[in-house]
Amino acid sequence: MKYQAALKYSIPRGTDDILPAEAEKWQWIEEMARKTCHLYGYQEIRTPLFEHTELFQRGVGEATDIVEKEMYTFQDRGERLLSLRPEGTAGVVRSFVEKKVFAEPQPTKWYYIGPMFRYENPQAGRRRQFHQFGVEVFGSADPALDAEVIALGIHYFEALGLTRVRVEINSVGDPETRARYRKKLIDYFEPYKEQLAREARDRLYKNPLRILDSKDPKTKEIARNAPSILDSLSVAAEQHFGQVRKYLDVLEVPYVVNDRLVRGLDYYTHTAFEYVVDIPGAQAGSIGGGGRYDRLIGEFGGPDLPGFGFGIGMERVLLALEEQNVEIPVQKRLDCYLITLGEAAKAAGMKWLEALRRAGVKADRDYMNRKMKAQFKQADRNGARFVAILGDDELKQGKINVKHQESGKQETIDLDQFISYIKENCRRG
Amino acid sequence: MKYQAALKYSIPRGTDDILPAEAEKWQWIEEMARKTCHLYGYQEIRTPLFEHTELFQRGVGEATDIVEKEMYTFQDRGERLLSLRPEGTAGVVRSFVEKKVFAEPQPTKWYYIGPMFRYENPQAGRRRQFHQFGVEVFGSADPALDAEVIALGIHYFEALGLTRVRVEINSVGDPETRARYRKKLIDYFEPYKEQLAREARDRLYKNPLRILDSKDPKTKEIARNAPSILDSLSVAAEQHFGQVRKYLDVLEVPYVVNDRLVRGLDYYTHTAFEYVVDIPGAQAGSIGGGGRYDRLIGEFGGPDLPGFGFGIGMERVLLALEEQNVEIPVQKRLDCYLITLGEAAKAAGMKWLEALRRAGVKADRDYMNRKMKAQFKQADRNGARFVAILGDDELKQGKINVKHQESGKQETIDLDQFISYIKENCRRG
Repeated sequence: MKYQAALKYSIPRGTDDILPAEAEKWQWIEEMARKTCHLYGYQEIRTPLFEHTELFQRGVGEATDIVEKEMYTFQDRGERLLSLRPEGTAGVVRSFVEKKVFAEPQPTKWYYIGPMFRYENPQAGRRRQFHQFGVEVFGSADPALDAEVIALGIHYFEALGLTRVRVEINSVGDPETRARYRKKLIDYFEPYKEQLAREARDRLYKNPLRILDSKDPKTKEIARNAPSILDSLSVAAEQHFGQVRKYLDVLEVPYVVNDRLVRGLDYYTHTAFEYVVDIPGAQAGSIGGGGRYDRLIGEFGGPDLPGFGFGIGMERVLLALEEQNVEIPVQKRLDCYLITLGEAAKAAGMKWLEALRRAGVKADRDYMNRKMKAQFKQADRNGARFVAILGDDELKQGKINVKHQESGKQETIDLDQFISYIKENCRRG
Repeated sequence: MKYQAALKYSIPRGTDDILPAEAEKWQWIEEMARKTCHLYGYQEIRTPLFEHTELFQRGVGEATDIVEKEMYTFQDRGERLLSLRPEGTAGVVRSFVEKKVFAEPQPTKWYYIGPMFRYENPQAGRRRQFHQFGVEVFGSADPALDAEVIALGIHYFEALGLTRVRVEINSVGDPETRARYRKKLIDYFEPYKEQLAREARDRLYKNPLRILDSKDPKTKEIARNAPSILDSLSVAAEQHFGQVRKYLDVLEVPYVVNDRLVRGLDYYTHTAFEYVVDIPGAQAGSIGGGGRYDRLIGEFGGPDLPGFGFGIGMERVLLALEEQNVEIPVQKRLDCYLITLGEAAKAAGMKWLEALRRAGVKADRDYMNRKMKAQFKQADRNGARFVAILGDDELKQGKINVKHQESGKQETIDLDQFISYIKENCRRG
């Protein structure tokens, strides 16, 4: 078509249309996520795409970029202050508390897959509407569980065919550890106070751990020699971290300890980790991460139960798959394309087409009044393995012509054998 | 747990948490939607969950309840006016135009599944975040296509096991028909002007067709004797409608003509239809509907191509399934539950658990330090077919005990036979 579109409305900046060729990849990475989770005994939960803004302020932390700068917040017509969810954990924990799931036998093993929203500067792998696959377990403090969840992610990446994914792991300890480390950090950063980026300076007494997250070059340089949290671990925290590493060894999960990994969220305790893969052009190479958050459920008004989880960025997974040239299994679009000639055959053809579909055969026909040759082309374009041709004459004789596209072989068969013939030959592959 | 939650944050009004038992049903109705679409040659498209507000004003129509009262609208930090999508068609058409898909061979056969948002008075089957499965075809004006799409929906309902779904169908004609009918309607309603509900009165000259949609009792009563659009059809519209009905007959789709079916959206032409099923308590019994919209693509700045589609409300489908007591196939959560006794067996058990999962066996273990008896209970609760018990002694001897939960039969087997034993026995069903 030679038409030049006069586009009136464009897609919102930082969001994407996922057209069919791409959507098939999404279907696949989502299906593999579900399958992997089911193997590990995790079940799906779905929470609303927006929540009361306060939930994220409390759950994600008020002094975070996400809550301060990146949330889509609005009032509904009942004057409720709502925000599109910027991450998955807060809503899932809210649901665990509100639906009293804590009263059932624990642990609760859940996963979610879905869109999240952050007002960020758009780039590859960093979108304003992005998608996460996440896992959350509630109720167990067993370090073996930390290892299980981390291994689940690795299992998932392997199932996708993604290689060279490593785990970076750290412990952010318990409250005792955090108090001790906080003091050490303040002592360390105070002499450099004037040289820190404004944001880092603001956080010096509020949340000095987050200075280690800073993207400011000067602040980063100063932070390089800051004390390691691993030297502040309490006995309990030390023990937990040792057990996690032991089980990761048992599970042969490739990991390295990275004591600078503190993550941007306030509620983490003990284990913090990231999945890292090399993706040229995308920041840091992290495709996901998570950790333990033994204080979040209580924070939301629930009982004092521990939690552990991860979130994986699906856009980044797709980028990594592309980068590593992983071939994604794509379904053939059509098994059989039906061409009819004449009015009677067209009507009868509609009936046969429906019969094919009900027999589980992917089938289609022309709806553009194309000539026969153009219809063959359309059949090819859609990868049809068989083209069936029904004319008014054949219809009268109860026959239909079937052409096997690959071999070029053509046969005339009885109409009452048609469905089983196609079905049988499609099954043969 | 005897804990009484002090809930601090609740779910936004009119939205839902979908917990695992319910989420499995969602997985199933979505999977069946995908399967059905693929049989008919339809492919998935995903568009963003928000768009520029103007898109919906133009696409859905400014004088509609949706745009006037029900949209979630907000400014982003770049001062763009955005709205959560209240329906699926506008975004899909925008994408078709913006991505220049019209330049490829037609028709374009797409489907979508996902959340939509309307600020409505919440009730069963009418949620502020709700979910639609929709189909859109662009590029073909063939009435056989109208019948195909309508039949696809019926095929879907049958695949789900839903019965007693009928199609109500009407023609809203072409511009010639609409102009003629508009005049007849104004002539009819003018004498009753003072008795109409305010909204209907406002629409009398703007869009009198929509008065037929009114929910006001008095207006409805007046509208009952309004002229039928079927008496205003142009020759072309009459012909199109006749062909659609012919193909529906061929496809044995159960339908009735309902000349009061005009639908709330402005851009429909020719065929308008609804899927109706009896659901006590829910309004009207409509679980979806759609029609032809030959003017929308041009309206969005694209070429003058026809379109046809439907949207099905997934919450309503679930309500209908429940009402009809349709049993939804639910997967067994676990194949094998692994119990370990002792520290060495716990570590080795982690390895065997991972091996089971990698062999495609749904497997889990205890992470709560439960006693053995409680672990057996947990295995039962999760429907495990096998319980495997590994103690430090068995581990030394390279053995493991396996209990078949249903028969109660217990066997001691070699550890190196363990995975294949479980896998084999699970396959046997």
